[in-house]
Amino acid sequence: MTELPGIVGVEKKFFTFEGLTLENGSFFGPVTLAYETLGTLNPDKSNAILVCHALTGDSHVAGYYGEYEKKPGWWDIMVGPGKAIDTNRYYVICSNILGGCMGSTGPSSVDPATGEPYGLTFPVVTIMDMVSAQHRLVRELGIDRLHSVIGGSLGGMQVLSWCYQYPFMVRSAVVLASTMRHSALAIAFNEVARQAIVSDPKWSKGHYYGKSTPSTGLSVARMIGHITYLSDESMRQKFGRKLQGKDDFSFDFETDFQVESYLRHQGAKFVDRFDANSLLYITKAADYFDLTRYNDYEDVLVKLREASVKFLVVSYTSDWLYPTYQSRDIVKVLKRNSLDVSFCEIEADCGHDAFLLPSDRLAGMICSFLAGVHTVSGKGRP
Amino acid sequence: MTELPGIVGVEKKFFTFEGLTLENGSFFGPVTLAYETLGTLNPDKSNAILVCHALTGDSHVAGYYGEYEKKPGWWDIMVGPGKAIDTNRYYVICSNILGGCMGSTGPSSVDPATGEPYGLTFPVVTIMDMVSAQHRLVRELGIDRLHSVIGGSLGGMQVLSWCYQYPFMVRSAVVLASTMRHSALAIAFNEVARQAIVSDPKWSKGHYYGKSTPSTGLSVARMIGHITYLSDESMRQKFGRKLQGKDDFSFDFETDFQVESYLRHQGAKFVDRFDANSLLYITKAADYFDLTRYNDYEDVLVKLREASVKFLVVSYTSDWLYPTYQSRDIVKVLKRNSLDVSFCEIEADCGHDAFLLPSDRLAGMICSFLAGVHTVSGKGRP
Repeated sequence: MTELPGIVGVEKKFFTFEGLTLENGSFFGPVTLAYETLGTLNPDKSNAILVCHALTGDSHVAGYYGEYEKKPGWWDIMVGPGKAIDTNRYYVICSNILGGCMGSTGPSSVDPATGEPYGLTFPVVTIMDMVSAQHRLVRELGIDRLHSVIGGSLGGMQVLSWCYQYPFMVRSAVVLASTMRHSALAIAFNEVARQAIVSDPKWSKGHYYGKSTPSTGLSVARMIGHITYLSDESMRQKFGRKLQGKDDFSFDFETDFQVESYLRHQGAKFVDRFDANSLLYITKAADYFDLTRYNDYEDVLVKLREASVKFLVVSYTSDWLYPTYQSRDIVKVLKRNSLDVSFCEIEADCGHDAFLLPSDRLAGMICSFLAGVHTVSGKGRP
Repeated sequence: MTELPGIVGVEKKFFTFEGLTLENGSFFGPVTLAYETLGTLNPDKSNAILVCHALTGDSHVAGYYGEYEKKPGWWDIMVGPGKAIDTNRYYVICSNILGGCMGSTGPSSVDPATGEPYGLTFPVVTIMDMVSAQHRLVRELGIDRLHSVIGGSLGGMQVLSWCYQYPFMVRSAVVLASTMRHSALAIAFNEVARQAIVSDPKWSKGHYYGKSTPSTGLSVARMIGHITYLSDESMRQKFGRKLQGKDDFSFDFETDFQVESYLRHQGAKFVDRFDANSLLYITKAADYFDLTRYNDYEDVLVKLREASVKFLVVSYTSDWLYPTYQSRDIVKVLKRNSLDVSFCEIEADCGHDAFLLPSDRLAGMICSFLAGVHTVSGKGRP
């Protein structure tokens, strides 16, 4: 990998609007979205790319807020000057999802009606709702049509929802390590993570703000998640049966193995940066995700064809959370409807998280895919 | 499957001995093992088969205690008159493991020195320790050599430990859906389950006996376990995205999907029958299991060849907890040492738990394998 520097001086911005009608039928507002942009929007506003983050990501997709920041944004390997998603060429937008806890309105936000954090009075939002909110932001930025919408995992679900809800606002879509229909296995893991949180007495039915947080439950939930992001092979390579700083077993319940220490560390670190209720809401949104449950889903495919939307779908051999067959299902539906879709299954040992790791293969694929998306192709109907 | 009736009138018996020196170097005792036997020991005591149970199993391998019992023992499909492990022919023994909570000495047992339950003063025992205790029982029953030792999962680890510790006391060994070396992935799942338990404030560092038990933590731990016993495919077939007794999403955090309801039910049911500390100890024993860490492990293979011990190793295509390659590792080691080993990977969608489910294939294989084990083959050196 060529290591290119990231942008320094990225700003977190906020966009507030009156609210939106949710999939559950109710109106919710006001809504604030935290977002960041990189690169420059061209005069005809045709070079915008929306990057959608995964479960616990945020708007800080790439670059550094300032020199003081030790680590760049979560996808700096992919987004920046001269990188696959080249900020010299594209105007990249990334916003924290509705329901999140990184600046966008979520269960930890203060309800203006009560002056108290929403907690469980926050509505159960869906991926479609998250995308409806992003849509407001994109419109606010004056953009009629996105050059591309790109995301992995939960971000990939948002990409598919963009195509479903706003087919004429998307020129191309990149769906990485994702699914059009959350599986029973994936629901199962999410449900156990949620149970770990709600079983923590400090969760207090979601009213823990200003008091002590359900950190042990949240930590266990994160540990469960982390296992699903790795693979048998990557864990064998990374940890195997290596012991943590000792020569023999402890014969007690302290940490013996490095993999235990790693998971505990991941759990503990997560507690400092993430809100437990947000994890409940976002995992629920993922579980609800099923494009095939919408009656007009086939009609939308016709619109996508009309709009000549191009697709790139990527899966990873060792991803057992959203295995390749689920990506193939997306590809099948698109191809059956004569849509222009490229598909690649990347051979990788590192499991679901592969799309977040440096990969010349993925970078090359995204770069050339984006270059092949013509701004004039297909009709936009903004 | 031909459904054959099970034996009615099985008795749970107890064997107490002064104790044993554990792998951690300390002496622990007294030890009681709960055990059950089916069939009749023949005059030359050559027809005994030891069945080793898995993580949360017990001595009640087959048959019914009485007419009142609604469900037979956990492997009644395999063990009984005319069944694959035919109790008309074989004398079947099954004992609850050391560290368990189904009648054998474990952390919930009363320490005679204090009059209080052991809790965390119970020593961290290993699979080898469990087998050392079983060995005492087998000796007590007057048996010098077992026709076979059979077990799946954690039971398979016990089978391998029997071969390692007492190669001349075993005529044959059947290892189902198991491993010779607990993987990082399997350790990871166990560690998260343990963290779920110890994070429950009611766990009180293991001193919860006579008070309220860490049922929420234990329930989450069981839910995690249950996911690993199934497979993506089996969950899709069994649950898919079916909703639990409703037509649409609840848009709250109640149960929406059948898979959630199933897992919560499994968690809740488990809490009634299992001790949280026992789960800590038994998962730890599994994590410690690694035959290759013993320096004399290659020497034992020579002894097993000398004793003409026959092996049957079975794996399942959809078992991702102990995948086929781990069974192949066992087979490779045995074959490299010219041992008589049959191996079969069974095509099955149902995941790790497959060995507990009705299967003519497995039944046929075990039945003919046992028939092919000659009581005169190889030298016993009891």
